[in-house]
Amino acid sequence: MSKGRLEAFSDGVVAILITILVLELRIPHGADWEALRPLLPVFLTYVLSFVFLGIYWNNHHHMLHTADRINGKILWANLHLLFWLSLVPFVTGWMGENHFASVPTAAYGGVLLMAAIAYTILTNAIVAEHGPESKLAKAVGSDVKGKLSVGLYVLAIALAFVNQWFSDALYVLVALMWLVPDRRIESSITA
Amino acid sequence: MSKGRLEAFSDGVVAILITILVLELRIPHGADWEALRPLLPVFLTYVLSFVFLGIYWNNHHHMLHTADRINGKILWANLHLLFWLSLVPFVTGWMGENHFASVPTAAYGGVLLMAAIAYTILTNAIVAEHGPESKLAKAVGSDVKGKLSVGLYVLAIALAFVNQWFSDALYVLVALMWLVPDRRIESSITA
Amino acid sequence: MSKGRLEAFSDGVVAILITILVLELRIPHGADWEALRPLLPVFLTYVLSFVFLGIYWNNHHHMLHTADRINGKILWANLHLLFWLSLVPFVTGWMGENHFASVPTAAYGGVLLMAAIAYTILTNAIVAEHGPESKLAKAVGSDVKGKLSVGLYVLAIALAFVNQWFSDALYVLVALMWLVPDRRIESSITA
Amino acid sequence: MSKGRLEAFSDGVVAILITILVLELRIPHGADWEALRPLLPVFLTYVLSFVFLGIYWNNHHHMLHTADRINGKILWANLHLLFWLSLVPFVTGWMGENHFASVPTAAYGGVLLMAAIAYTILTNAIVAEHGPESKLAKAVGSDVKGKLSVGLYVLAIALAFVNQWFSDALYVLVALMWLVPDRRIESSITA
Repeated sequence: MSKGRLEAFSDGVVAILITILVLELRIPHGADWEALRPLLPVFLTYVLSFVFLGIYWNNHHHMLHTADRINGKILWANLHLLFWLSLVPFVTGWMGENHFASVPTAAYGGVLLMAAIAYTILTNAIVAEHGPESKLAKAVGSDVKGKLSVGLYVLAIALAFVNQWFSDALYVLVALMWLVPDRRIESSITA
Repeated sequence: MSKGRLEAFSDGVVAILITILVLELRIPHGADWEALRPLLPVFLTYVLSFVFLGIYWNNHHHMLHTADRINGKILWANLHLLFWLSLVPFVTGWMGENHFASVPTAAYGGVLLMAAIAYTILTNAIVAEHGPESKLAKAVGSDVKGKLSVGLYVLAIALAFVNQWFSDALYVLVALMWLVPDRRIESSITA
Repeated sequence: MSKGRLEAFSDGVVAILITILVLELRIPHGADWEALRPLLPVFLTYVLSFVFLGIYWNNHHHMLHTADRINGKILWANLHLLFWLSLVPFVTGWMGENHFASVPTAAYGGVLLMAAIAYTILTNAIVAEHGPESKLAKAVGSDVKGKLSVGLYVLAIALAFVNQWFSDALYVLVALMWLVPDRRIESSITA
Repeated sequence: MSKGRLEAFSDGVVAILITILVLELRIPHGADWEALRPLLPVFLTYVLSFVFLGIYWNNHHHMLHTADRINGKILWANLHLLFWLSLVPFVTGWMGENHFASVPTAAYGGVLLMAAIAYTILTNAIVAEHGPESKLAKAVGSDVKGKLSVGLYVLAIALAFVNQWFSDALYVLVALMWLVPDRRIESSITA
């Protein structure tokens, strides 16, 4: 089964999602700077989601680079990840239009949490196919960063009902934490 | 004629369709969990259609993997399949927004039925190009699963006018039946 | 310069256009068959435009298959073709929503005419790069079918102001004429 | 790390952006030529943005053709460029719907300016990876055209508050200046 087509399909879906985000930025009726102000929270969530989708694409790119074989389980684990990512424009718009209200902020974290879990399932499916002694398995290791992200998302969802700015700060923190490409895999490749 | 470009184009169309589905999930005006409730039927049909498009992409992937040559007839049989798949977001939205009413439920089944028939035509066109002794021809065999799906869709369309929940149960059943990648072809490849 | 990236980009644009067409099929409010009736003209124009875009993709596929080299002129001639094709969803929706009124029917023909001219310019740019003795130049020959299409589009635009059903019949006629893949090039490849 | 997937992803995003532009062309309610008149400014901005995105795709194509290696910095510099390009449909629609009013015209220039800066950052990241003696570094040279574009965008943004037609003329001028593929790189390839 060809890895190339799985990559191309995933790239296509992420490319479309990242551009569909723009459609949430509805063109304002006014023609002055004032007209842009209500769009600011939507724009900020758009930037955040753009970065998250960029991180997923980037890490997906790295992970599949180390994979040699694809099986049916990997295909479906990949589609499962794409499913949760495909909900990102929806929760982005909901959070942005409601100016970071509690429930939409929690829902945003919920989708990111499910995507993170889906990414872990995909990683495990690829590791299972390649064996515990494979380059990928060693590169992933104990996956501290992945587990930490899941914990931070759960915390952010809970904090959304206390003060949602804590949640938003945590989302930005997780994004910053991942902005660096996955050095574990990169160092394993160059080694 | 290059198989790669046919695959890339089909991947592109399916990737776009699977993400256009999200656009049917309109962002609610409220900012509480209550606001999400009316979206539940749309969300459930979205999940179902995502799975159906995933199945088609997956099986299309497997089938073309075994093909060596593409001709004009295969190109058009493929476009015919993509045409029916391109109507999936429309019937998904119609069924979801009308909370699984009879006629939209039957229309949903009608589009799935036509897509199943189009897939059979595409299979036959590829088998015809490769001959009855080809790996693909043997792998498809008598295509019990394909014929069963067509029968179940016809039954589901009829039952939509009795009780549409029977139809929805049948759609879920067909999806589950296909969720496993096509073992016939897979075993034939590995054999 | 790589032919692959030009093909991939063109495939991407056409794949998106063919699926954007579906967005013009707005989900009706009613849940009975009656609710679908006003959509019928939109649906028919959708089918026609789907076939036209399929023809362009198909012939574009054949033509680039025979090309060995790409230059800057070919890149821009290709973007020029994609520009006119990108207007197809707009005129399709306009013609469909106005039930084939005269002016939208003429505008539909106008976009098809410009796309046909853009395709001829692209063909000439590729032929110029490969020389009059190339396989492609011989395959295109005097391009009777291309010139006939241009003539029929001009006729259809004029007839839209007499009786637009003549125009629609001519659009269907041109589509049928091209539905067969370009035998000139195909025979030249297999020869 | 594979250059192919970076190109495919960028092509996907640009292909989607170029077609999303069309969605800003809302289908008019009337069915006569008069109904198209209010769309004229939107259409003209659409043509201009189509050309700008075409130029970016074209030059991106040329630049990556000369690149041998991709690193994490290049990946993110590329995503940064795609981010600003993804705002093009938004400012195009805003400028078009407000008939080239001052603020939207300045905002349009602002997005083009940021995209030009992002392109320079991407170029520098690729040059840094390949070294000052590489073919690409020599081809880019002092990048007069890039610096001139940035200057003209800044001028256009300022002039938008004097007379926005000056700004629009400058946008057209920059587009014309780039319409020719980058001869510096092309000549360096053929040399």
